[in-house]
Amino acid sequence: MNTKVFEKPFQDSKYDEQQAFENKTNVENEAKVLNTHFQPSQLLKANTISQKTAFDLLVYLSQQQTLVEAALEQSISVVYPEKIYESMRYSLLAGGKRLRPILCIASCELCGGTVQMAMPTACALEMFHTASLIHDDLPAMDNDDYRRGKLTNHKVYGEDTAILAGDGLLAYAFKFVVERTKKVPVERLLQVVDQLSYAIGAGGLVGGQIVDLASEKLHNIDLETLNFIHRHKTGVLLQASVVSGAILAGANEQAVQLLSRYAHNIGLAFQIIDDVLDITATTEELGKTAGKDLLVQKATYPSLLGIEESKHRAQKLIDEAKAELAFFGEKAVPLMAIADHIIARTH
Amino acid sequence: MNTKVFEKPFQDSKYDEQQAFENKTNVENEAKVLNTHFQPSQLLKANTISQKTAFDLLVYLSQQQTLVEAALEQSISVVYPEKIYESMRYSLLAGGKRLRPILCIASCELCGGTVQMAMPTACALEMFHTASLIHDDLPAMDNDDYRRGKLTNHKVYGEDTAILAGDGLLAYAFKFVVERTKKVPVERLLQVVDQLSYAIGAGGLVGGQIVDLASEKLHNIDLETLNFIHRHKTGVLLQASVVSGAILAGANEQAVQLLSRYAHNIGLAFQIIDDVLDITATTEELGKTAGKDLLVQKATYPSLLGIEESKHRAQKLIDEAKAELAFFGEKAVPLMAIADHIIARTH
Repeated sequence: MNTKVFEKPFQDSKYDEQQAFENKTNVENEAKVLNTHFQPSQLLKANTISQKTAFDLLVYLSQQQTLVEAALEQSISVVYPEKIYESMRYSLLAGGKRLRPILCIASCELCGGTVQMAMPTACALEMFHTASLIHDDLPAMDNDDYRRGKLTNHKVYGEDTAILAGDGLLAYAFKFVVERTKKVPVERLLQVVDQLSYAIGAGGLVGGQIVDLASEKLHNIDLETLNFIHRHKTGVLLQASVVSGAILAGANEQAVQLLSRYAHNIGLAFQIIDDVLDITATTEELGKTAGKDLLVQKATYPSLLGIEESKHRAQKLIDEAKAELAFFGEKAVPLMAIADHIIARTH
Repeated sequence: MNTKVFEKPFQDSKYDEQQAFENKTNVENEAKVLNTHFQPSQLLKANTISQKTAFDLLVYLSQQQTLVEAALEQSISVVYPEKIYESMRYSLLAGGKRLRPILCIASCELCGGTVQMAMPTACALEMFHTASLIHDDLPAMDNDDYRRGKLTNHKVYGEDTAILAGDGLLAYAFKFVVERTKKVPVERLLQVVDQLSYAIGAGGLVGGQIVDLASEKLHNIDLETLNFIHRHKTGVLLQASVVSGAILAGANEQAVQLLSRYAHNIGLAFQIIDDVLDITATTEELGKTAGKDLLVQKATYPSLLGIEESKHRAQKLIDEAKAELAFFGEKAVPLMAIADHIIARTH
């Protein structure tokens, strides 16, 4: 994974390159163990070591991703009728950056919660995201054959199963949050269910996709519509990720608001950079067909604003996102680094 | 609506045909008012009048259906992007017996709860049911052009919108339960979310549909598989309807178990009768194409057991369902009558 190393010293200790290298190696070894069994105590130990010296985003993302993969791996068992569970697992475990789960966990920890409190919701966020990708890829929608470098769900299992796999993931995600979350008051869990159901419905993902589909037929949409699409297709679920994490930890209203605005800004910046990368990156780097937006004459930030202005706006959004985190002090280093990473990524 | 009048005297008062007629007229007039605004106080008044004399299922179903229609009518507003909300409303408000909401409300009242406590969940159940119908009707699934005598969602709005309308309804139903339910402890609400998410996922509707699709290609499935299909496609959501109502009212474990078995039995009986009606009823009576099962050589109860044996099994299931209700005494009259109605219906 290509990541930017965030080099700001953490907890006033001096940054030591050799020490950081050793920490990284230790953490990566631990991550291999964690790949088999989800053991939060080891994560906490790894975090403690890392934070004593400097924050290394490369290590952090890799470690969190490993934890999330392990939890996702165990989230769905294959029972009769096997085909539906296999197809749900196929797309859920097809890789990806796991940005939404990582944001949820980071936000929960920032507000005083634990990885364990956040993990079921983190997995649910990835289930929702995956469900929307499966449905978006269908022939009746974006008609994509590849996703994350692998055949899309309907190309492997057929359209009927793909539709049902999406529905199954949507349903199961709610069950997963309610049944698997431990040590969180029920009032908070109910707030999380509320946030999630909003984010994936017509006020979020579904609303964004419907405007996106309509816009593809128009070829001349304005910036306001483009913002609407991305705010709903991407922003709202990213916001729900961060806000859910904070709610699970019992954060107060002010903290939730700050984190919500942080997520809104990085969500839009993420999409602007996605559009830019569709032009500037290769198919190999993206894991999906590059240049597709240009080919279908799709309105994008670069097509409306140019590449340089798009990059400039993304940077401004990231700066604003980071400013929202000032309130939290040095504890917010992971979320700060993720914001920086969004603008620096190449795929 | 063609319904069977359940004539058993209620609360030991003598059945009076003239009085019942007047009650029915009063209730129907009140129902017209309720069609515009959902006013539970009027329902309670109507219920009281009715129960003082005799239980009339015709009146009861019509009245409950009117209440549910009014609540559904107000459940989804049309805002930008209008198309998605219009398509969600199109299918949600396309009529139907509203059996799931009515069962939920009846079960809640039976266990000491109120219509108000149950109504958001009742609406959510209809949203889930509608979502599954929209997706089942898609060309990639059952490829149906008509549903409830109207064009299916994708025939009106296109396949892409129909997929999203289903997703939108699934998501919104959870939000609706969480945000609109009043005067119910949060623990109970969380249990309801758990029940609902199970019923609509791979353990319920989705699992039933995937086996149904696979079976259509086989033409020689056994009774066990047929039972699996119907238990999951129909039974689990009917069970969730009745169980959710009981949970919302704070019913104890024994009551929930009895009601769960009641629902299981009427669910299977409902499906057996559905299969019988596909052969014996006309297209006009059904509001959907009759004889379609025979045409596609679909395995049904009559094709495996014959029409008479199918009817016999359905009657046995109904008798067993009613036996489960003995515990509740006369309060269970509405659920008793609904069980009888399932076997007597002609569409």
